[in-house]
Amino acid sequence: MDIYGGKVHRLIEELSSLPGIGGKTAQRLAFHIINLPGDRAKQLADAIVDAKQNTRYCKSCYTVTDGDLCPICASGKRDHKTIMVVESPRDLAAYERTGRYTGVYHVLHGVINPALGIGAGDIRLKELILRLEKEDCEELIIATGSSVEGEATAMYISKLVKPSGIKTSRIASGVPVGGDLECIDEVTLMRALDGRIIL
Amino acid sequence: MDIYGGKVHRLIEELSSLPGIGGKTAQRLAFHIINLPGDRAKQLADAIVDAKQNTRYCKSCYTVTDGDLCPICASGKRDHKTIMVVESPRDLAAYERTGRYTGVYHVLHGVINPALGIGAGDIRLKELILRLEKEDCEELIIATGSSVEGEATAMYISKLVKPSGIKTSRIASGVPVGGDLECIDEVTLMRALDGRIIL
Repeated sequence: MDIYGGKVHRLIEELSSLPGIGGKTAQRLAFHIINLPGDRAKQLADAIVDAKQNTRYCKSCYTVTDGDLCPICASGKRDHKTIMVVESPRDLAAYERTGRYTGVYHVLHGVINPALGIGAGDIRLKELILRLEKEDCEELIIATGSSVEGEATAMYISKLVKPSGIKTSRIASGVPVGGDLECIDEVTLMRALDGRIIL
Repeated sequence: MDIYGGKVHRLIEELSSLPGIGGKTAQRLAFHIINLPGDRAKQLADAIVDAKQNTRYCKSCYTVTDGDLCPICASGKRDHKTIMVVESPRDLAAYERTGRYTGVYHVLHGVINPALGIGAGDIRLKELILRLEKEDCEELIIATGSSVEGEATAMYISKLVKPSGIKTSRIASGVPVGGDLECIDEVTLMRALDGRIIL
């Protein structure tokens, strides 16, 4: 039996279709939205439509933004000769939160994953190569994830870029800060050992 | 630095204002919404506005619905002489999921909570009393939660209803099914013991 009537039910269904939102969370969110004061629900709805309709990919690094260039690519304060290759805008955001990196980015929107049928042509790799040909890049930091696919994509890019002579680096793998050694898998520990730094 | 531009940023902020949605989840949801195909984002936005604008309280039980009466109060298949008093539409939904209860409900929209300044006049208690005067109720099941406030509200309602002679019951407290005895607090264990059933 539909206990709320169609409109509440439809909102709960729409919310449940979002990633990581199960039935009970969707119900909780729906009641919260229904009880929002005044225009707040309308504001949320407008933000959804506005973001969906007006965002596009940065013409240079392909992150999600609302202008031609994202704020990072448009900034004169960033080092445009250092490019960090990341899998997604969320990875870009994670590195930005460190506040340490001053270069620019290139967002692949995925990694090569033959099991899922994602080839080199399905991610923004051609755009990276074109960019490296046009721009004066001094270092390319490959920061794809440490999954099998992330590693394979990093290797692929590094081989592809090698003939150009551009310095290419890979982010370090190892023990996470504050991690309990006992809880860390053997592959990570091996990497941590291989990548040890002489003090 | 605002790394995405205003529109994505605004959507992330709107999503973060929802209960239980932190910054990282909001970011994940925002990118999901931006990448939704075709009209799906618009559909989500429409469902929000539609549910907000067109839901009201059932005239009989005060649950959230979109007609004058909720589907349960409007149903001829339910036992309208048994009324279960619950705190919220979500509690109503929880009892409906059991599929066992065939009576109707009354939604209080809260419990009496002097610490938060919520008195008997702030919940739908007057409406319950008026309903009991008008309708032919045989049993009132008080299913407010087992918090201190839920218990106090249950006691308050039971005293209020007593003069009318209507049979009043309270849902059982005890050990949850599948619960590990070791992990259950003493008050619940005491209740389970007091409410034991002779086999």
